[in-house]
Amino acid sequence: MLPVPTTNAFVPPRRTLMGPGPSDVYPQVLSAQSKPTIGHLDPLFVAMMDELKALIQYAFQTKNEMTLAVSAPGSAGMETCFVNLVEPGEKVIVCRNGVFGERMRQNVERVGAKAVVVDNKWGESVSPELVEQALIANPDAKFLAFVHAETSTGALSDAKTLCQLARKHDCLTIVDAVTSLGGVELRVDDWGIDAIYSGSQKCLSCVPGLSPVSFSPKAVEKLSNRTTPVQSWFLDQSLVMGYWGAGNSGAKRSYHHTAPVNALYALHESLRLLAEEGLENAWQRHQDMHQLLKAGLNKLGLEFVVDEDSRLPQLNALYIPQGVDDAEVRQRLLNDYNLEIGAGLGDLAGKAWRIGLMGYGARRENVALCLRALEEVLS
Amino acid sequence: MLPVPTTNAFVPPRRTLMGPGPSDVYPQVLSAQSKPTIGHLDPLFVAMMDELKALIQYAFQTKNEMTLAVSAPGSAGMETCFVNLVEPGEKVIVCRNGVFGERMRQNVERVGAKAVVVDNKWGESVSPELVEQALIANPDAKFLAFVHAETSTGALSDAKTLCQLARKHDCLTIVDAVTSLGGVELRVDDWGIDAIYSGSQKCLSCVPGLSPVSFSPKAVEKLSNRTTPVQSWFLDQSLVMGYWGAGNSGAKRSYHHTAPVNALYALHESLRLLAEEGLENAWQRHQDMHQLLKAGLNKLGLEFVVDEDSRLPQLNALYIPQGVDDAEVRQRLLNDYNLEIGAGLGDLAGKAWRIGLMGYGARRENVALCLRALEEVLS
Repeated sequence: MLPVPTTNAFVPPRRTLMGPGPSDVYPQVLSAQSKPTIGHLDPLFVAMMDELKALIQYAFQTKNEMTLAVSAPGSAGMETCFVNLVEPGEKVIVCRNGVFGERMRQNVERVGAKAVVVDNKWGESVSPELVEQALIANPDAKFLAFVHAETSTGALSDAKTLCQLARKHDCLTIVDAVTSLGGVELRVDDWGIDAIYSGSQKCLSCVPGLSPVSFSPKAVEKLSNRTTPVQSWFLDQSLVMGYWGAGNSGAKRSYHHTAPVNALYALHESLRLLAEEGLENAWQRHQDMHQLLKAGLNKLGLEFVVDEDSRLPQLNALYIPQGVDDAEVRQRLLNDYNLEIGAGLGDLAGKAWRIGLMGYGARRENVALCLRALEEVLS
Repeated sequence: MLPVPTTNAFVPPRRTLMGPGPSDVYPQVLSAQSKPTIGHLDPLFVAMMDELKALIQYAFQTKNEMTLAVSAPGSAGMETCFVNLVEPGEKVIVCRNGVFGERMRQNVERVGAKAVVVDNKWGESVSPELVEQALIANPDAKFLAFVHAETSTGALSDAKTLCQLARKHDCLTIVDAVTSLGGVELRVDDWGIDAIYSGSQKCLSCVPGLSPVSFSPKAVEKLSNRTTPVQSWFLDQSLVMGYWGAGNSGAKRSYHHTAPVNALYALHESLRLLAEEGLENAWQRHQDMHQLLKAGLNKLGLEFVVDEDSRLPQLNALYIPQGVDDAEVRQRLLNDYNLEIGAGLGDLAGKAWRIGLMGYGARRENVALCLRALEEVLS
């Protein structure tokens, strides 16, 4: 036998999470998650999942039957959309203005499809003009894929307009709403989004590990008409929906994989709190806290990466002032104030910080702590 | 705006979970999981992951550097092994003696490889003789894949012998240890297993949603020498290990996906409890509780599906007596005793029950409750 590792119970500190996610988790969500585990086919659990589905539909503002939480993080939600909908050889227009657009491109290539990339500068939103040019130049494209809220830069793109363009050119849309869901306006049905995924750990303030996903009837039709099998067994939505029971909530649920029972308790609770607050109130709260933070950051002389008109309230990317040591500042905030802010990612690594105001984290005491701590550390 | 769903907080009952998993979760694990969320790149979290890796290595009895928990359930652990190691066109010998062998076959086909199936009857273990015949008949096979402990039937296969045969014929092994890990003898290094996956929700008595996985150096070499990209971005272990830090625990961790922070707290605690008990003690406890259960079930006149010499202690499949209503019995156990036992799966649906004695669930009070409740319901 190998030697037994001697390990103490892990006791995490209480941090204030103001990075790009995970965000501060609602205390009620942590408590919900620690309720006793029950079976994933228990009738009471199945009834909870029906409620959860309705709550996800509300958050996305959709009536899509195929709406559920993928049993894995947002990256798996992204992959769910691409592997189910895109077939080898098909053409996808992918908008890239940060890390996650590039990840979409990699997903397209891994399904054996062809990505046509529309590039915008990091920190800018996706240009509808460039997208329309690409749609015209590629009449055989089947999909338009873009990130609603780029977590790597804090730029918001105009999802409504991009979806209109896609429809005009007979493309289905695949939309990344990992950072946008619950933090800014998002209307899946009104805007005509065909496939959308998000994450539990951003503006929903749930624990990380789940990815809400929704497919429109047109996306479901595309999935049903596939001529090749979905390359992933785990993410194959035609199998998963046998368990989630799309379109026939009274029907018998069949086993696909063991659902992450306690994590789903947590998501149920976080979405219930969002519904209780009301989506529009949550959007407004993110905006209000952003304005407070912005005013304070301006006083500190910090500059935003993203122009005001496409700036996300829930993710504030700021240039690191010249002469300031990136790692040292973040380390002091973490060690002395138990405050986490995010480093830059990709092109912005070492050049920017990312301050999140997401979900439960978007509240006045967090803004106050962040401004005061930054002031002390930068002085 | 769509109408706001009105939903109460979900309050699950306290069940005794004696199905095929999820099993009863240790109270300490539920408590660990509800500790405050911290960042997935927080130095304290990264240190916890180093401990977690050592704990997974201990449970698997391996020194493999590439050892981690996939951020998704056991089915994704299975897919992780196939998509990373098997390339399109390669031949895999797949042993099928239940649901999960068949699922392996489907995974092989979805990566575009060729499955040669070795069939054994449901309820029997994998026959080394048939496997050797297949290895001889298919000298171009690159892998032997089998299920150590078939959750659908309760049959244990001789992993040590099967791995010896695979080595003799230059095949790498891919082993499903979802139900075996922590419940019966399993020695990854001694037996020469090349790729193995398990689940958090069986004999580890952690919450469902994670899959411990380990690759031998030979498996890592196979992955490194791939000529085609791994078809899954989310499960690509060459990317994931940049975050888990294989082989260079001091190295900077790079972001891949947001780790399921709280679920990993839970896994850390459950594996810590396993190490505290000692693996061999845990194996013995499962055997002892199985003997108690077996004696009681025999008195009730119930018959096991699996012969004694290949019977799993932690998963007891029993034929439903003639004239007894399957669903009604399980419903009465659930409603009147808060006791969950498992239905039959696949070929055994409607014909068998599956009684789990897994991890924290393998204790005397559970055996007593199960025997008494069954006696009352069947009388």
